Amino acid sequence: MSSRSYDRTADALRPVSIERNVSKNAYGSAFIRCGDTHVLCSATIEDKVPSWRKMSGQGWVTAEYAMLPTATGERTRRERNGAKGRTLEIERLIARSLRTVIDLGGLGGEVTVTVDCDVIQADGGTRTASITGAYVALHDALQTWKEAGMISSMPLTGQVAAISVGLVDGEALLDLDYEEDSHAEVDMNVVCDDQGNFIELQGTGERVSFSRHQLNGFLNLAEAGIKELMAIQKSVLAGE
Amino acid sequence: MSSRSYDRTADALRPVSIERNVSKNAYGSAFIRCGDTHVLCSATIEDKVPSWRKMSGQGWVTAEYAMLPTATGERTRRERNGAKGRTLEIERLIARSLRTVIDLGGLGGEVTVTVDCDVIQADGGTRTASITGAYVALHDALQTWKEAGMISSMPLTGQVAAISVGLVDGEALLDLDYEEDSHAEVDMNVVCDDQGNFIELQGTGERVSFSRHQLNGFLNLAEAGIKELMAIQKSVLAGE
Amino acid sequence: MSSRSYDRTADALRPVSIERNVSKNAYGSAFIRCGDTHVLCSATIEDKVPSWRKMSGQGWVTAEYAMLPTATGERTRRERNGAKGRTLEIERLIARSLRTVIDLGGLGGEVTVTVDCDVIQADGGTRTASITGAYVALHDALQTWKEAGMISSMPLTGQVAAISVGLVDGEALLDLDYEEDSHAEVDMNVVCDDQGNFIELQGTGERVSFSRHQLNGFLNLAEAGIKELMAIQKSVLAGE
Amino acid sequence: MSSRSYDRTADALRPVSIERNVSKNAYGSAFIRCGDTHVLCSATIEDKVPSWRKMSGQGWVTAEYAMLPTATGERTRRERNGAKGRTLEIERLIARSLRTVIDLGGLGGEVTVTVDCDVIQADGGTRTASITGAYVALHDALQTWKEAGMISSMPLTGQVAAISVGLVDGEALLDLDYEEDSHAEVDMNVVCDDQGNFIELQGTGERVSFSRHQLNGFLNLAEAGIKELMAIQKSVLAGE
Amino acid sequence: MSSRSYDRTADALRPVSIERNVSKNAYGSAFIRCGDTHVLCSATIEDKVPSWRKMSGQGWVTAEYAMLPTATGERTRRERNGAKGRTLEIERLIARSLRTVIDLGGLGGEVTVTVDCDVIQADGGTRTASITGAYVALHDALQTWKEAGMISSMPLTGQVAAISVGLVDGEALLDLDYEEDSHAEVDMNVVCDDQGNFIELQGTGERVSFSRHQLNGFLNLAEAGIKELMAIQKSVLAGE
Amino acid sequence: MSSRSYDRTADALRPVSIERNVSKNAYGSAFIRCGDTHVLCSATIEDKVPSWRKMSGQGWVTAEYAMLPTATGERTRRERNGAKGRTLEIERLIARSLRTVIDLGGLGGEVTVTVDCDVIQADGGTRTASITGAYVALHDALQTWKEAGMISSMPLTGQVAAISVGLVDGEALLDLDYEEDSHAEVDMNVVCDDQGNFIELQGTGERVSFSRHQLNGFLNLAEAGIKELMAIQKSVLAGE
Repeated sequence: MSSRSYDRTADALRPVSIERNVSKNAYGSAFIRCGDTHVLCSATIEDKVPSWRKMSGQGWVTAEYAMLPTATGERTRRERNGAKGRTLEIERLIARSLRTVIDLGGLGGEVTVTVDCDVIQADGGTRTASITGAYVALHDALQTWKEAGMISSMPLTGQVAAISVGLVDGEALLDLDYEEDSHAEVDMNVVCDDQGNFIELQGTGERVSFSRHQLNGFLNLAEAGIKELMAIQKSVLAGE
Repeated sequence: MSSRSYDRTADALRPVSIERNVSKNAYGSAFIRCGDTHVLCSATIEDKVPSWRKMSGQGWVTAEYAMLPTATGERTRRERNGAKGRTLEIERLIARSLRTVIDLGGLGGEVTVTVDCDVIQADGGTRTASITGAYVALHDALQTWKEAGMISSMPLTGQVAAISVGLVDGEALLDLDYEEDSHAEVDMNVVCDDQGNFIELQGTGERVSFSRHQLNGFLNLAEAGIKELMAIQKSVLAGE
Repeated sequence: MSSRSYDRTADALRPVSIERNVSKNAYGSAFIRCGDTHVLCSATIEDKVPSWRKMSGQGWVTAEYAMLPTATGERTRRERNGAKGRTLEIERLIARSLRTVIDLGGLGGEVTVTVDCDVIQADGGTRTASITGAYVALHDALQTWKEAGMISSMPLTGQVAAISVGLVDGEALLDLDYEEDSHAEVDMNVVCDDQGNFIELQGTGERVSFSRHQLNGFLNLAEAGIKELMAIQKSVLAGE
Repeated sequence: MSSRSYDRTADALRPVSIERNVSKNAYGSAFIRCGDTHVLCSATIEDKVPSWRKMSGQGWVTAEYAMLPTATGERTRRERNGAKGRTLEIERLIARSLRTVIDLGGLGGEVTVTVDCDVIQADGGTRTASITGAYVALHDALQTWKEAGMISSMPLTGQVAAISVGLVDGEALLDLDYEEDSHAEVDMNVVCDDQGNFIELQGTGERVSFSRHQLNGFLNLAEAGIKELMAIQKSVLAGE
Repeated sequence: MSSRSYDRTADALRPVSIERNVSKNAYGSAFIRCGDTHVLCSATIEDKVPSWRKMSGQGWVTAEYAMLPTATGERTRRERNGAKGRTLEIERLIARSLRTVIDLGGLGGEVTVTVDCDVIQADGGTRTASITGAYVALHDALQTWKEAGMISSMPLTGQVAAISVGLVDGEALLDLDYEEDSHAEVDMNVVCDDQGNFIELQGTGERVSFSRHQLNGFLNLAEAGIKELMAIQKSVLAGE
Repeated sequence: MSSRSYDRTADALRPVSIERNVSKNAYGSAFIRCGDTHVLCSATIEDKVPSWRKMSGQGWVTAEYAMLPTATGERTRRERNGAKGRTLEIERLIARSLRTVIDLGGLGGEVTVTVDCDVIQADGGTRTASITGAYVALHDALQTWKEAGMISSMPLTGQVAAISVGLVDGEALLDLDYEEDSHAEVDMNVVCDDQGNFIELQGTGERVSFSRHQLNGFLNLAEAGIKELMAIQKSVLAGE
């Protein structure tokens, strides 16, 4: 096996940092760096809901995801004629993950929280970094909302973070970078809450299938990685 | 617990039937019925590949998915201004699943197999029924291709089928119908090959998260269901 | 002259069958087979009208038409970036034809009946088969509407059916199949009501023009063919 | 019956004028006025054919149609997000009509003649005025083409003109203006060649159907009207 | 220096004519000819404003711009899949220019004046000709509005006209035609009011930059040209 | 007059900083901050040119511009259904400005330099900050291109920077922030080269027109501001 970026072992995360309050205009924002993957997550709250949510008395949480053109090695085209399937798939994943840890009835009415995840630089794991960063941005937006007197208590019911695992050259690895991801045999994204339970699990055999035994190995790696990420989120939110 | 459609137990499939050769024009076709979910799967082979596959000497497999407007209880709008995220997500899932069991170098050149999955009637599980039916249509298209002398041997390297499982009112159920799916706490789609290995695993906690223990319960149900589906596929392909 | 499909004479229809109640979700549905041309017609009624019909107190009838990709010999692309001119033209024709035999003021308010015509298999004459089948689906949707107590009497004011005629190798033929249609010199679609009057007449000289005398020959053929189709519609609706 | 515009009888055309060479850039152009309906027809020849015509060795004729926003009483929106069904339908009709009177093999190779029909002012009958004017523009473009030495003889095989007829308040009328058209019971467009034969016939019962007898009345009116239009075309092309 | 079209000197306009009331349907219209550049300007007033202007109690002025396909030497494609950047830029320029000389509060409520500028023939300077012609169309639309009793006084606060200047082969020229424009080193559009003040100034060094001294030369030319145009506008509006 | 942001005088710039090499993947990049306006400029070079530049033997320079949704006080929608007119207008301005200071024949063949300007935070003057930053990114991309051996000398023929000026409450101000810009009477963007000459000049009277005298005042302010910006660019590129 070839050595991994940052000289890390199979079960190690890349260096992670999360910076809060990076946007002057967003209600809450977080700039997350997972190695060379950098995502700017910004949450805003607007006084509207999708038409099918009207009259529900409840709020909504949605997400948007985009890459800057130079986020990737080869310049990526802007999605000006409609978002690609991959983009929409990621946006749906981020939004579903966030909605699992929020009480939509506790947002103070029919408002929508939009979390924008803009990938400034991409080196694998952009969707999981987006989720991990989006949680912090969402938290801070709700804090702003509360401080503005729109709600009296925080509607968060849990914490959420995500990580990728995969099978590369026959070995199970945590937190794949782009190089590893691009020739992985199995690619899996895991989203958990702070109970250690799964919110979302997406595993794909790119060229080969994987056994129940291998799956358990992936999940062990992911659970440990997510625990680390949650500790970082907590520490950042505690202002440490 | 309320009784399930077709009076079945938690671990039972709905009645499944697969009819071959239902389209005069397709190279291979299958009409699959899983209870009230009916999908017409048709495979055609065209003499072209996506631009990024050119000069590879290899073929490609892709899929398209659509619902007839009256497939659903409330009329669904045609996707004439671009496919929705959900549709693209399903198309990508079907195509990835099929590509795992085919040798793309054995298609006799740079040709594309397109498997169209048109949902005539929807009652939950349309994406998994599409995969299970698409395998039969793909098989027959390749057979036609071989009989036409374009290839000398079948490039299939395995068999693929898929099923949904979920947590409904706290109980793990196999093969959810629409009614069950719409208030499921956890929704999971499982795609396997004939080695009993996973090709794709997509689990989503809709409102609640799920534990490792629950996951194992879901996978047990899914593996048994998929074994049954594969037996039906085999029997249909054997002309029984 | 070469022999025609189904060994029929110049003035003969292909075998026609119409099956009712083929869709679980539609208010009314009909699966029409004219030889190898198969169209699924499904009618639904929704509580809305186009904006320019608002405040009219009257209902509306519209139609949509699409081909499954494998309906044709060469795979047809889905119309995901806007419908083609041909499609819109056919939809307008179907809708106009149906509106001529319905009292829009008798639909019980500002509701829209949409008749979806999905071509499962195409062998010429898809637009005329759509109209003939759509009438049955419309009839049954109105029956459902009446049984639901939304209207007290059926607002149908007549019966409508359609057929193609054409000039092929100098000979006037009824009900062209694809092979005939693709090298016809004149192609004409005729829509009539049960008084034997014309609702719509569309004749096109593809490469040659046609005389008044020839036109009369075409109309004679069409009128006889439509009479037969109306007998079939009546018999099907009578439950025979 | 109320009096008609220009105090004309039921079988009279509105005043018609055709001006040639009105565009500095087009290969051929004609400005046709039929009463208050004014259409600018301009033909250009470009060195390309649709992809499906490549390798045919033959040319092609196509048409585009648009209305200036202020052509109509109420401002019409520009079709910037795709042309409407009505527009595409008219473009197809104009192009088909022109192709019937041209030898596509005599255009000197794989070139496309595009005839742009821009309605400057609309008062009913814009599609038939477009066809009548487009013939003159086409003629002159081919003349230019011949004078440029690209072809040695004119590939026109006939002359084409078009007119509307309709049933208004129970009376058959020739050449309907907008006021008449908007409450016509039957609306029919007739395209003929100089043999007096039909190239295209499109009759629509808007609210009522029409009998064979009525049809014959419409065709009598149309044939006479078209004869007049052809005399005007001839006279204009003769430079009178 | 080569001689200019119409044998004019560097500081001379091309022959200009403005014809009023050319459209039967518009509230006001003007057909402006600046040499071979011909633009049809038509103004209509509709009972609506953009959503962000609602509740303002004020009106709005907007503009649309398009070229007929054969306006240019090489056929220009219709903008059916969205307007090009150049088009939108010109539309914004025309509208801003008009809004500077109108009291939006004096339009009698929340109405929108749309001025359509359709280029029938293009030979350079289409955007400035559009502005100069649009002023006349706007004036006449307001006159119609006043005569209809919708307003009691004309809300125009000034007069507006525009012209191009440029540097061609090192020489400053007024009113560039297409030939000059296409190889100009500097291209500048100037919009003025009747106080001789600037409403809009857009100067572009196409390949070279230009000095403050050169700029002053351009503005001297433009101011004189615009004075001439305003005299023509006045004379036309006075009915001379 | 109210005090300006950063307590600056009418002729003062906001604090400016330019950081180079901020993107791992771009050939050259610069992050420019002008007060609270922050733009990430990234240049990439690709082996292709627009179709109309093929066979020219020359390269091309283009630009794209976008705002992150949370760059503005109120969340801005992503332009996924086509860019707005304002966006296209800015992209064209940036690209034209850069092309004036580059020898397109000196790019080593038919390659395109794309400069992406992504506004991370907006507080007025985003288009001028984009140009000033884009110059640095372009410079560095060309340096990379030269170091890669693709060209032997730098094809830059000058330096370019840009600034806004405007009339606010009757006073001429340099470098407007959003608050000033939103109620400016005149808004002008000036692009200069290092000879002190103008590359582009865009002045707009938003509600009032401006005199020749005022224009001269604006240009004096702009020229001084641009001199300062060029000194900063030089210092940054010198690595100070």
